[in-house]
Formats: sequence, structure tokens, C-alpha cells
Amino acid sequence: MYKVDLNCDLGESFGNYKLGLDEEVISYISSANVACGFHASDPLVMAHTVKLAKESGVCIGAHPGFPDLVGFGRRNINVSPKEAKAMVQYQIGALDAFCTAAGIKMCHVKPHGALYNMAGKDLKLAEAICEGIFEINPELILLALSGSEMVSAAQSIGLKVAREAFADRAYEEDGSLVARTKEGAMITDEDVAINRVIKMVKENKVEAITGKDIPIKVDSICVHGDGEKALEFVKKIKARLESEGIKILPLNEVI
Amino acid sequence: MYKVDLNCDLGESFGNYKLGLDEEVISYISSANVACGFHASDPLVMAHTVKLAKESGVCIGAHPGFPDLVGFGRRNINVSPKEAKAMVQYQIGALDAFCTAAGIKMCHVKPHGALYNMAGKDLKLAEAICEGIFEINPELILLALSGSEMVSAAQSIGLKVAREAFADRAYEEDGSLVARTKEGAMITDEDVAINRVIKMVKENKVEAITGKDIPIKVDSICVHGDGEKALEFVKKIKARLESEGIKILPLNEVI
Amino acid sequence: MYKVDLNCDLGESFGNYKLGLDEEVISYISSANVACGFHASDPLVMAHTVKLAKESGVCIGAHPGFPDLVGFGRRNINVSPKEAKAMVQYQIGALDAFCTAAGIKMCHVKPHGALYNMAGKDLKLAEAICEGIFEINPELILLALSGSEMVSAAQSIGLKVAREAFADRAYEEDGSLVARTKEGAMITDEDVAINRVIKMVKENKVEAITGKDIPIKVDSICVHGDGEKALEFVKKIKARLESEGIKILPLNEVI
Amino acid sequence: MYKVDLNCDLGESFGNYKLGLDEEVISYISSANVACGFHASDPLVMAHTVKLAKESGVCIGAHPGFPDLVGFGRRNINVSPKEAKAMVQYQIGALDAFCTAAGIKMCHVKPHGALYNMAGKDLKLAEAICEGIFEINPELILLALSGSEMVSAAQSIGLKVAREAFADRAYEEDGSLVARTKEGAMITDEDVAINRVIKMVKENKVEAITGKDIPIKVDSICVHGDGEKALEFVKKIKARLESEGIKILPLNEVI
Repeated sequence: MYKVDLNCDLGESFGNYKLGLDEEVISYISSANVACGFHASDPLVMAHTVKLAKESGVCIGAHPGFPDLVGFGRRNINVSPKEAKAMVQYQIGALDAFCTAAGIKMCHVKPHGALYNMAGKDLKLAEAICEGIFEINPELILLALSGSEMVSAAQSIGLKVAREAFADRAYEEDGSLVARTKEGAMITDEDVAINRVIKMVKENKVEAITGKDIPIKVDSICVHGDGEKALEFVKKIKARLESEGIKILPLNEVI
Repeated sequence: MYKVDLNCDLGESFGNYKLGLDEEVISYISSANVACGFHASDPLVMAHTVKLAKESGVCIGAHPGFPDLVGFGRRNINVSPKEAKAMVQYQIGALDAFCTAAGIKMCHVKPHGALYNMAGKDLKLAEAICEGIFEINPELILLALSGSEMVSAAQSIGLKVAREAFADRAYEEDGSLVARTKEGAMITDEDVAINRVIKMVKENKVEAITGKDIPIKVDSICVHGDGEKALEFVKKIKARLESEGIKILPLNEVI
Repeated sequence: MYKVDLNCDLGESFGNYKLGLDEEVISYISSANVACGFHASDPLVMAHTVKLAKESGVCIGAHPGFPDLVGFGRRNINVSPKEAKAMVQYQIGALDAFCTAAGIKMCHVKPHGALYNMAGKDLKLAEAICEGIFEINPELILLALSGSEMVSAAQSIGLKVAREAFADRAYEEDGSLVARTKEGAMITDEDVAINRVIKMVKENKVEAITGKDIPIKVDSICVHGDGEKALEFVKKIKARLESEGIKILPLNEVI
Repeated sequence: MYKVDLNCDLGESFGNYKLGLDEEVISYISSANVACGFHASDPLVMAHTVKLAKESGVCIGAHPGFPDLVGFGRRNINVSPKEAKAMVQYQIGALDAFCTAAGIKMCHVKPHGALYNMAGKDLKLAEAICEGIFEINPELILLALSGSEMVSAAQSIGLKVAREAFADRAYEEDGSLVARTKEGAMITDEDVAINRVIKMVKENKVEAITGKDIPIKVDSICVHGDGEKALEFVKKIKARLESEGIKILPLNEVI
């Protein structure tokens, strides 16, 4: 049986600022990465988002990021591995309080934005993050870019890891994402994007930007809920995957 | 047997800013209230302070405050009970991650500064905070001003509560602290202060500012570690209490 | 000739978070209060908003608030007058840099949210704010609630002051705003609201919630640009005022 | 006549956190770089520091940094040139408000920490910062690392620039600072350090870490006031420079 998780970043509102169609997109996904107050969210938003995720039965994960609200956690900050470990532990703990209060268990951790990108390429940073997660709960699953240093770090530390792929991004021959600044980095045709995902899941392959098929292992597909167009795509990819006999399952049932 | 806890706020450094003689004062106290990043502290300081507290064998508690770093959590902010509950849960969770990572259990929660003062007089706020704590872990002990609304709230919710007194503060006849702006609010003579504490512990009484003895129940005495003078006082009160046959015990062994 | 200013809070976006229909509402107002990074906005948003205001020819004012991004500056914080003065000066200076860079002059200052409300009732706080403004530029106009302590403070210090009224709020007999928690506090019928404003401008009177007419002096009406409905109201009130022979002029041409 | 400025970072306290011996070191320096609330300081500290600088008659400059209080502005953040320009303008404006209120003129701008280091090597970033300063006041002096891209950027834009050298840092043959991670990066012998400065000022030369003399132009020497040892060094270098016939003058009298 083919199976894959659909994960989406949720709970990115902050105080008076609303972001994302959380209430709507949550019906179509199987795992939610919940912002923890450093790059987005606040305690009330977190409490609300955890309840929403509980009601929807999705797998709940922490989505820790850099302490950079104005940059939405998307700007590289050259933190030390020790700092990264501590900031990830802090944020996991904060979200876990709301999970415990709501009577559910946190399932996974996915670093956000620049932290995700940096740790994907920097083994020391990746190991520090994985150690941080493992020390808090060795049952937590790391959700990381397929083929990245984060996957390697998790495996060497003994942390469970789920490999993530992007429907809307092109890949280099070495399996890394094509930089957004390069032409062809984004897959803009929705049907092409969905067909690529189906091939990833069924054949464990993706066509690199060079035209060559490369191997890829995928446990989860990252989708977005930050607008009507994104929402429509989530509905569409869910329907297409299911019609192809691919089951959408929460992260902890995929790996 | 007479017994009492000595509690002290620790882990109040922040980034490049150092505050408090944590390494020294911790040998003389039995419980540590650790700042959680809202009014003071940061993830690295929290990780360090939790390890320090673990090595010293003191009872570790969360010390959640208002999100007001520049005001050190000492300025009243008119948050709703719901906001207070969420911000307390967030901070408890954050600290708990470092406790779990260090292999120890969090023992208590003491709200900080303006949040402590406001919740001591506002039952709705106090109840929201107590509910927040109870939802995360009903075994946690609330450390609250003796005679305050926080004590009432904890009791009505079924949360364990330890009653705190101050060696250096005068009391009104109704058991409340004399406002710092009033003359005589501070007990500046160290021997007088220590004798008052001994009387509180042994006789459950304290002389109010009016001269009349009033009843007071005390499980813990709040001491400070923010300077040489404060440190000397902690050593002195510890020695005097012990010479009076009063055992200094961590919070969870006092109540 | 009858004249009045229409003022609106602009530049309340922050990083990735968008708020308000600034580009649209600015065509219908005569003065813009620009957030300064404490309760909303960031340096890029401020630079953009100042340029927008310049192009539209409206009067630009600083809109300093409490350092409370998550609370949008709407929660009372018991700052000292000295703190309030310094935080207002800081924010005026920050916005002024963008005005200078854009080659325009700042025209007025309107405290935001809880700071506006608190200073409206607390003369010491109001005086500290007015002193802060006066020290930076005695030509700046304070935009303050008609009849409030801020108006008194400005007058005693010699700071220019423009009196603001709200179209959508009911008034007590003493000229203060009816608390939002009381029934009838909001004027929900748009035509009633506009007729009240016309009466304020032409007759210097408003009907209090008790039914009695009270005197009110109005230089500026506060309108909102935070949604389609608000925008429609701004268009409507502008058209109605003009058809009544009331000229809409920037703040510095009204007083 | 030989002349040089001694500049020092001041006003780095924050809320309850005290940092630096500002009151003492200010007597021995000629220019003060005042933190602006992003990496350190707050409005009250800024108001106080500006008054202190005014009384001492030193040249006052803005010391804008990254919005990274916990990292003290020492962590690289990959901001865009546009973001850097806006954050520098914001901070200059904020400090300028306190200068205006105190009746003095701001004299210079020195970017702080990681922003200083990054802009020293990145011409686009340096140009954005210089443009930002120039737009606010073309008379402001940029204080920048001698030989860096910031000097080039200032010259190409027409902004006045003063070149800074470090007494306690070794130089590579290309005139850049030896990375702190390399052996020999710090000049620990105080007399050696002072002799190097004298040679820089009198002969416009410094011995690189390779042993070869390289040219260097110096208008200002950076000294520190963050502890007793630093303070003693400032007294010593001032006395030695003066005994060598080198006059210590504020930045605007050196260039």
C-alpha cells in the first residue's frame, strides 16, 4: 500500500495579526506543524491551534524557528549549535504544555524557515537540534528535508525521522532543492507538481532540473494554507493522491 | 519539628547581561524559582540554571512573568485571565523542557513580579493561573503569598499550595504587605527581620505595622541573591534558623 | 467656513503580517497617524508608509504606543511618566528619520491605544508625554481626545493641540467616552454617526447617552481603514461632510 | 600636529540590567557610540546616556545594530540592504530625538557588532547603510573600519567617514582584522598595543601578523568601558598618547 503524510504549517497568527486559513486547511492534511512563538504565534494562538489540531485528529508537531518575528524566521542567523539546541528545546517545551493541557501527545518536530534550511546543510547544527529533541522525548519524529544533513543527524543520534518533499520545488541532481533565485526553481503548474509527487511516492524518484531521474524517499509532502489558492491546491492534491490509491496518513502512521 | 523552605529567584541573566550570584546563593537555599524568558532569562540561561539547580539538589520551580523584558516583569499589564493562563502555561512548558532534558522533575510554580502581585489580589486572574498549572501537572505546587487570593484560588481548584512570607517586608493588619511607598514598609534591620521569620515559623504570628500580632502561615521564606549584601543575609538567616531548630527543607518536603 | 480633519491610523503592518487598507483609505483622509514599531509596524513598513503619505499629501503624525506587539498596544501598562516620555520621544524620533529621508515634515503626534486612554485620564502621564513632544519640536500638534487631560496638559505646556472626536462612540454627560462594556457605547447606525459628526462640527454639540446635548469642540474625526466596511464608511462620511459644506483639511490647516 | 579620536560604545544597559562603566570611562574618551535599543539600551537609558555625553562634551554618535537583544547584535543576520538601511535610519532617528531634546547635535554613526562586520565586507550592504545615513543628515560622519568596504561606500556616496583602528586586534597583510578564532588575533600585551597605536597615528603603519609593515589610516581608536581592566587601559592609552604629543580630539575635530 502506498501512503504519505500531508503536513502544513499552522498557528502562524500573532496577536492582532491573522495569518493562514487554519480552520479550513486542517480538514485536508494529516500533520500540523505549530509555530511556537519565536518566528510567529503567541501563547493564545498556540492554545487555540492545539485544540483545533486535536479536534481534527491530525498529528501535532512543534515548528520551532529563529527568534525573529519581524523576519518571520526566514533570515539566517548564525547561532551556535548550543544556542540552536536550547532554542529548539525551549519551543518544544512551550508547545508541549498546550498539548498536555489539551490531553494529547506531541508527535513530531519540524524546524522552521531559515533554521530548517541552515540545519539541512550544516551537520553540527543538525546534530545539536536532534540531540535537543531526543533529550526531551526520544519518541518524537523529526520531519526533515529528504536527503539533508538533518536526516543524517537524526539517524546517527537514533532519532526517528520522516523525510519531507516539496510539490512545488525543483530538485538538483544531488537531491537538494534548486535555489529560489534560479530559473525553474518553482513548479508552477499544479498538475505537473501533483504528478511529480505521485512519482515520488510510488517510484521513489523525481526528475531533477537537469532532466535526469534521481532517487528520493518521501514520507511527507509539505503543503500550504496561507491563501485561497494554496487551499485549493491542498484539496486537489489530496483528491488526486487518494484517487491514485495513495493513502493520506498522519506522520506517525507513515514511518 | 519546625521546618521551612528558603526560596530564591534564579536564572535572571539574559544574553550578554549577567544578574545575580546564582552559583553562590544556591548552596544556601532549598528551592529555586527559575525565570522563563518573558521578564528575564533566555534558553541558554535556562538550560544552565536547571543544571545548576539539579547539581545543588534544590527544588526547581518555574517563575513565569509578564512579557516585559525592559520592565523586568514589574509593571502591571492588564491581561485577561485567559491571556495570563496561556502565558503561564507557555513558560512552564518551556522550563519543563530543560528539566526533562536534565532528567529532573519540576516541583513548583511561582508567578513573578507584577503578575504575582496582581494575581494575589484578583481572584479571577489567580484562578486562571491555577487552572493553567493544574492542567499541565496537578502535582505542581503553587508558591504564593500567604493569605492572598492565589492561595484561595489554588485551594478551590485542588492545586497544592505553599505559602510564602517575606523577611524584609512589613504587614498590614489584614495580612497584606505594606505598600512599598508607605513608611516602614521595609524591615531594614537584619536581626529584626530574622526574628520575625522565626516567630512566623514557630508561632504562626507576625507583628503587623500597627503593633498588633496577626496570624500567618508560612511554608517558605523568599530570599534574594542579587548582590553581596543579599547573599550575606541568606547565609545569616539560614544559620539562625538552623540554630533555632528550624529545618530548611525543599518545598515538596515542607508541605 | 466649517472645516474638520479626518485622521486614520496607518502603517500597522508588521513583517510578514499585513493589516489595513492603507493604499485605499489614504485618498479619503487628511491626516495619517503612523505606527512607530512598538505596538505595530517595523522600519520597512514605516519607510513605505511615510512615502505613501507624502504622495497623498496628508498630514503625517507619529502614533507612538506601548512596547506590546502581541497586545497591539491595547493593554494598560503602568509605566511611570518618565518612561512614557522617553518611549514617546524614541518613537517620534524613529518616524521622523523616515520623514526627513523622504523630504517631508512631521506634523502631529497621536498616542495609541492604551497609552492614549491612560494619558487621557492621568494628567501627570499626559504632561510627561506633552513635554516629550515639546522638547523635540514645539511646532508639533498633539492630537488628543476632546475634553481629556491630554488637552489640558498640552495647553498648560504650550503645545499645540487638536481635539479629536469619534463618530462611532457614545459620550457621557461629562464629555468622556462611554465605556465599551456599557450598552449603547457604540453608534452602529452609520447615518446616525455621520449626523452626530455634522452636529459636532457645525454646532459644537453632541447628544450624550442620557439624551442631553453637551458641548464638544472638534478639530478632527477619527476614522478606520482596517477593512472593507470601514473603508466604505470613510468614503461616505467624507462625501456627506463635503455636501454639508464642511471642508476636509489636514490637521495643520484646521487648527 | 598628531591627533586621534578615542571612541567607546556607551549606553549598553537595558532595563534592570546594568552594563559598562559609562560614568567613569566617559572622562577619558572623545566620542561615544550610543546603543539605540535594537541590540542593547532602551529609551530611558538612551535619554540618560545622551545627557551624560552632553555634560562630558564628547562627540555623540548613533550605534545602530541588529534587532537581536539576546545575541547583543553579535550574530550575523542575513538582512537585505533595504532592511539594513531602514533599521539604521530608524535607530538614528530614535537617538536623534534624545539629542534634540537635550539640545545637542548628533555627530556620527557607527554600526554595531555583526552589522559592522558584515557591512565592512559587503559593499551593497555598506552602500545601503551609507545612503540611509546621508538621507537623514549629510553632515553625519560614518565611523568605520579603516580599509573596509564601508569606507569605500561612504566615499562613493559623499558621506564623511572616519577610519577606526583597534588597539587590541592583529591585522592581516591586506589590512583586515585577523579572525578572533585564529591564534594571535588579540594583542594582549597592553604596552605592545599602545605602541602599535602610536605607530598607526604617527607613521600610518601597523605590523601585520606576518611581520610585515602595512599602511593604515587612523582617525579614531576604539576602546572599551565594560570593566575595571578596560577602564584602566583607556586611562593608560590616553596618557601615553598625550605624552607622545598626540592630541585626543572628538571625531568632528579629527577629520
